[in-house]
Amino acid sequence: MYEGAVQELIDELGRLPGIGPKSAQRLAFHILEADTEDMQRLVRAIITVKERVKFCTVCGNVTEMELCNICRDDRRDPTVICVVEESKDVLAVERTRAFRGRYHVLGGAINPIAGIGPDQLRIRELLTRLNDSQIQEIIIATDPNLEGEATATYLSRMLKTIGITVTRLASGLPVGGDLEYADEVTLGRAFEGRRNALT
Amino acid sequence: MYEGAVQELIDELGRLPGIGPKSAQRLAFHILEADTEDMQRLVRAIITVKERVKFCTVCGNVTEMELCNICRDDRRDPTVICVVEESKDVLAVERTRAFRGRYHVLGGAINPIAGIGPDQLRIRELLTRLNDSQIQEIIIATDPNLEGEATATYLSRMLKTIGITVTRLASGLPVGGDLEYADEVTLGRAFEGRRNALT
Repeated sequence: MYEGAVQELIDELGRLPGIGPKSAQRLAFHILEADTEDMQRLVRAIITVKERVKFCTVCGNVTEMELCNICRDDRRDPTVICVVEESKDVLAVERTRAFRGRYHVLGGAINPIAGIGPDQLRIRELLTRLNDSQIQEIIIATDPNLEGEATATYLSRMLKTIGITVTRLASGLPVGGDLEYADEVTLGRAFEGRRNALT
Repeated sequence: MYEGAVQELIDELGRLPGIGPKSAQRLAFHILEADTEDMQRLVRAIITVKERVKFCTVCGNVTEMELCNICRDDRRDPTVICVVEESKDVLAVERTRAFRGRYHVLGGAINPIAGIGPDQLRIRELLTRLNDSQIQEIIIATDPNLEGEATATYLSRMLKTIGITVTRLASGLPVGGDLEYADEVTLGRAFEGRRNALT
């Protein structure tokens, strides 16, 4: 449609999640007309993230070091682990200030249609952490949608056999939504009202 | 909120038009988790556009050469010029196949609140082109919104004194919208039904 480079940029932008053809075109023209310095900053930010950002070897959260800032923090309660799907969910829970334990980021949820089973998630790493006798409770805080519920049920059944207290966030979260979009009060209440798994 | 590089990327993405804080976060995590090769392609596409893409010295449309592909095309009618706000509007008009003349891209519309007056648009360049005695008609195809209408009225009044036929796209375009979003049939009809300016 357009000449070479512009169309290529539109195509690349259109591959990003949530960017339709019209948005891709609008963004491409913005980039085209924007200050070269601003666009260099954007490009540098992308390159830096790809080069520097890794995943915490303990919990799977994003970090630029070996351990994320929560795993490095001695003041966090090592006896409770909150299991979430993504790093952005860690931030959502942190915003509630209702939780002072540690996290475990699964890297997604069970979704057979997308080919994601338990083996594609960081469940083995969670089991390894449970060898640490300090851990007394696992709070499952997956998204309150179909995939998140399936993941929570799978984890509850598996962890039950180990004999650790496993809880799930209370209802109060809007069903069918994304955990990261819940407001602080709702998510905080859900933490307070967490219930025993499999009851 | 996040550690250094991730937050910087979220901030940079959030500066793009139409990207809110949640979208910026979602995009940043996509970039973080995406294939490095895919992200290198995106980065290269941005850099290439900034390096190679320029504006046609005649009409102001985007191009990688001195002249855009329409200005280089001898088969295009040199007696009619369609004046649009942006390069993306050229593509929208091209899709209708209702127009075989040349274009003039203003680079925006008159918008006093944003500090854009006639001097910030490529109106002087349009007047220079009108010294070419071949040109018989100017079709004003600015967006059918407040700024576009103001620009059309300004141009109509100015061009009237020169004695060239000045027309505007027919009503049929949805008012308050963006020209680039009109469907082909509507935009094609608007071309057919164009009327004399200032009548």
